[in-house]
Amino acid sequence: MSTIIVPTPTPTPVEDSESLRKAFEGWGTNEKLIIEILGHRTAAQRRAIRQAYTQLYEEDFLKRLQSELTREFERALFLWSLDPPERDALLAHESIKKWSPKNRSLIEISCARSSSELWLVRQAYHVRYKKSLEEDIASHTQGDFRKLLVQLVSSYRYEGPEVDMRLAKSEAKQLHEAIEDKAFGNEEFIRIITTRSKAQLNATFNNYKDEYGHHINKDLKNEKPEEFLESLRVVIKCICFPERYFAKVLRLAIDKLGTEEEALIRVVVTRAETDMNNIKEEYHKRTSKTLEHAIAADTSGYYEEFLLTLIGKEQS
Amino acid sequence: MSTIIVPTPTPTPVEDSESLRKAFEGWGTNEKLIIEILGHRTAAQRRAIRQAYTQLYEEDFLKRLQSELTREFERALFLWSLDPPERDALLAHESIKKWSPKNRSLIEISCARSSSELWLVRQAYHVRYKKSLEEDIASHTQGDFRKLLVQLVSSYRYEGPEVDMRLAKSEAKQLHEAIEDKAFGNEEFIRIITTRSKAQLNATFNNYKDEYGHHINKDLKNEKPEEFLESLRVVIKCICFPERYFAKVLRLAIDKLGTEEEALIRVVVTRAETDMNNIKEEYHKRTSKTLEHAIAADTSGYYEEFLLTLIGKEQS
Repeated sequence: MSTIIVPTPTPTPVEDSESLRKAFEGWGTNEKLIIEILGHRTAAQRRAIRQAYTQLYEEDFLKRLQSELTREFERALFLWSLDPPERDALLAHESIKKWSPKNRSLIEISCARSSSELWLVRQAYHVRYKKSLEEDIASHTQGDFRKLLVQLVSSYRYEGPEVDMRLAKSEAKQLHEAIEDKAFGNEEFIRIITTRSKAQLNATFNNYKDEYGHHINKDLKNEKPEEFLESLRVVIKCICFPERYFAKVLRLAIDKLGTEEEALIRVVVTRAETDMNNIKEEYHKRTSKTLEHAIAADTSGYYEEFLLTLIGKEQS
Repeated sequence: MSTIIVPTPTPTPVEDSESLRKAFEGWGTNEKLIIEILGHRTAAQRRAIRQAYTQLYEEDFLKRLQSELTREFERALFLWSLDPPERDALLAHESIKKWSPKNRSLIEISCARSSSELWLVRQAYHVRYKKSLEEDIASHTQGDFRKLLVQLVSSYRYEGPEVDMRLAKSEAKQLHEAIEDKAFGNEEFIRIITTRSKAQLNATFNNYKDEYGHHINKDLKNEKPEEFLESLRVVIKCICFPERYFAKVLRLAIDKLGTEEEALIRVVVTRAETDMNNIKEEYHKRTSKTLEHAIAADTSGYYEEFLLTLIGKEQS
């Protein structure tokens, strides 16, 4: 469930554009007003505002927005103002350009979105970068990571609820054998986790647990190569329990000395309109603190104000 | 260019449905009338007829059609009556179920369609088979064929005209090195031909020819493993000169003792509305015979009549 609070009645896109124009002009920028408007509009409404603004004032809304703001606040508002598929294309492109095995964006985009959302990301990537997403990944990565990531972003998983229990059993066995052989880049292993539907994979992992005593992610721990196994675990988490996974990313980002802003912004901005309510619950369950409290303690100013708005703080 | 001749004015879908109903009922089926209607309608018009018929008579149009016809004529008309993405999904599924390395459908569907057409095939596959296309391929094939086919059907090639000449040069070199090493299932080889845009690949193959003296397909001949190399050549042909490729498939199908109906029907039905005019020219250039003549000599009856209609014979 989304944590975005939209006022009723909602101003029209033209009215919002006029207010935003006022916020940009005059003595200094009126950040509070920008948050009040953009932080309380859905993706479709923000798109309508961008279009109305560009038509009214003949300047690119996003460029103007970026020129008015700075640092994390700018980054968060810029990402928030993009259409979700365009934002994911941009995050994917950034990840590819400075790719490291610790990178999570590509896995999140390919496993914690619906099949049709991932498809829209691939289309947006064409438009923005004049290449295909899988083409760029394939030419910037190597070995097992390449096999995994190219197949993940290229997949179009079936999304129906049908589950084949016999298949779940036989593929749980294949996964277990690959783990026993420490063959983590095994073709069958990658085939199963990159092509099967989420419903089917959940059945397979349940069967794995019943047959072999642990959740598969437990058996993927404390083995080598560490970074690749960590990525496999992220794939499985994004497929099976994305909300718990994102709560953990937030926890690690906030716990860090100085806060890992990149991850904090990414998770808040990409999940606010989908499942942030549940992520907040997971966060609370695990830390006995509310996410609001944790973010407020670690951030400040308009940046803090904006993140709290996105996770559902009532307007003051 | 299409070879389908649509009469003007075109009857409405309801009028066509009424005529088809008459063709189905009464003393024996009126095959001539069925050809006269369906052989002269575009994909969109055929879809409208299917819908109108089903609504008017409360029976499935395709089932009724199949029950009225037999053998090759039935097969050709049935495939023709489907929407192109649905037809491709069905052809892909048939190929997977009785997969052999000689199979061409999967390569044609993934390389001789546009990126968005391939995408529609993947959607149609979900609807029809409750699985993803790549999932079924991955679990029915092995080794290099699997690597190649899964990536081909999963790709969403960029379709713009932009070409990077430096990249073309360096990737031509990579392809040449793989061929020199006889490493045909080489990851880089498969990466390049499955992910790059068609414009980019054409530049790469041109560079290859300039630098190394032959078209790449020449260097992929007379090597082992034969069937896999033949598949690589088909990929390259479908990307670089699909019309010449399809003309050759027709030539081989018709030249065979007894005619290979499967391939003949597949090519006529899938290309009639796209590039059959050019395929006919290619055929004529190579054999000094017209395709009409060749098909007429090797087929007979309503089946012959229907194929000739699809390749543009004027109504008698």
